[in-house]
Amino acid sequence: MNILYVLFTLQQTFPLMEAVTMGKESLDCEHTLGLAIREATGPTCPPLLARALDYAVFPGGARVRPRLCLAVALANGNSEPRLASAAAAAIELLHCASLVHDDLPCFDDAIERRGKPSLHAKFGQRIAVLSGDALIVAAFQQLAQLGSSVTHPVRMAQVTAIVAAGVGGPMGICAGQAWECEPRVDLKHYHQAKTGALFVAATCAGAAAAGVAAEPWRELGNSIGEAYQVADDIQDAIADTATIGKPTGIDVALDRPSAVRQLGLDGAVKRLERCIEKGLDSIPECKGRALLHEVVQQQSNRFFPQGIKHTAA
Amino acid sequence: MNILYVLFTLQQTFPLMEAVTMGKESLDCEHTLGLAIREATGPTCPPLLARALDYAVFPGGARVRPRLCLAVALANGNSEPRLASAAAAAIELLHCASLVHDDLPCFDDAIERRGKPSLHAKFGQRIAVLSGDALIVAAFQQLAQLGSSVTHPVRMAQVTAIVAAGVGGPMGICAGQAWECEPRVDLKHYHQAKTGALFVAATCAGAAAAGVAAEPWRELGNSIGEAYQVADDIQDAIADTATIGKPTGIDVALDRPSAVRQLGLDGAVKRLERCIEKGLDSIPECKGRALLHEVVQQQSNRFFPQGIKHTAA
Repeated sequence: MNILYVLFTLQQTFPLMEAVTMGKESLDCEHTLGLAIREATGPTCPPLLARALDYAVFPGGARVRPRLCLAVALANGNSEPRLASAAAAAIELLHCASLVHDDLPCFDDAIERRGKPSLHAKFGQRIAVLSGDALIVAAFQQLAQLGSSVTHPVRMAQVTAIVAAGVGGPMGICAGQAWECEPRVDLKHYHQAKTGALFVAATCAGAAAAGVAAEPWRELGNSIGEAYQVADDIQDAIADTATIGKPTGIDVALDRPSAVRQLGLDGAVKRLERCIEKGLDSIPECKGRALLHEVVQQQSNRFFPQGIKHTAA
Repeated sequence: MNILYVLFTLQQTFPLMEAVTMGKESLDCEHTLGLAIREATGPTCPPLLARALDYAVFPGGARVRPRLCLAVALANGNSEPRLASAAAAAIELLHCASLVHDDLPCFDDAIERRGKPSLHAKFGQRIAVLSGDALIVAAFQQLAQLGSSVTHPVRMAQVTAIVAAGVGGPMGICAGQAWECEPRVDLKHYHQAKTGALFVAATCAGAAAAGVAAEPWRELGNSIGEAYQVADDIQDAIADTATIGKPTGIDVALDRPSAVRQLGLDGAVKRLERCIEKGLDSIPECKGRALLHEVVQQQSNRFFPQGIKHTAA
């Protein structure tokens, strides 16, 4: 156990994962995202919607979820790389859709995202609603389009069902957001749906794309997702807008459940540590387990805010 | 050519299509829709979202699109009935999603739909945005879940891609709605995307589910979709809210393109006639062509408002 002080930035990429994916062009998530957006914004697309769809996805944030998806596929031999890449891109498109709708005036009313005006602030509410919708559709469309060319079309269906479960009702992102509309909510349940579910989709879809059982990979996604959400709560409580490119202090402003509000700052940091440890311990046996363990551990360290003392697992 | 006076109600079902599908339980679109909503609203779903999802889909409207999809599949032998049924249900879920988002205050601000309060009027804007999102996801989810059990998983992927094209950018429903945000719009282009695209998805997905080429079925969907949209414009111009269960006169109120505004009432009725004739003429050769022709012709007559003179094809 070492005491570490690590930089906190959720905007940073995962350089070790870069190494893992290096040289495999078909795995380039940015490339697949670019294709999906080009297709969704073809010549017949209304110009405002086309600009907005591109704006919602590029330049990206940390791309944490698609990288996790690809890393799991690679650790399992990645026998259907185009499917893994499509799954990763679909997950990121759905994440972007959720951010666009989450920022709407009726939810967070956020005017900034990733250091630039939020989509509704720039293009208006109508285009923001439609962009979110079109991104959800684009996610499933580019998975479906692989169907006739992949070696294992049944895997494609399995991956699609896993991805869908991460975003819809009864326990995907939509459900997570909808808990904010309920008078009472269990914090863990809320976080699992709002954030954990898409991380679970990332690890399970990565495994399914590689042709191995998805279920054993659930715990890794769940734990890292919870860690990410707790880190986000900590960030909301202590960081400033200039550092992270989006408004802070909104959990309190919107009277929203938060790990810091429930457990205090120290309690939240302890929960973050426990989540990461649990995730690492859960990684199933597979060809690339050691490297995957290292990558997840390194990158999880980035979840800790600058100056926060933590005991590395 | 006969002069007919026919009742106008888009809320009515297609009784001849009922006859076509009678006795085939697996084709019951209501049954499949019920399963999809039950799954999306499972025990872990936040209660408000669960109630809203059910509210958005039941009781239904005319279910015109899923019935058209199933009728095309049947006319082509319907060799994968569960896939046809899933495609039909997916199309209806996506249609319901589009209605929920279309009624939002930032679009039509409609307080009534299908004779009851619109979803946002009853559950609030946040739940309305999330319900639309969750319905889109549910549509693709229940198609994907068939993937490992259908005889032809590649067909499932083709059907999914066709359905997605009907709703996303660059020329699905999202694009159609987004044309309303542009300063200039071509009426035909706008209608094709906003309404025609999902009718095209219905006919093409029905054909693909049955294992025949989808493209020859595009014109039927396109023409019936245009007819439906023109009928909707006529209805908006001349009907009253009590008769059709939703607000009227909104094309003028929102300064929105409309066939009646562009062509006048007589011109719009003539265009409606031409669309139906074109659709009927386009029906490709297939086993059940004669019955399908009859069904489409009969049901298209219902598009004409009471008291409007028209020359039946």
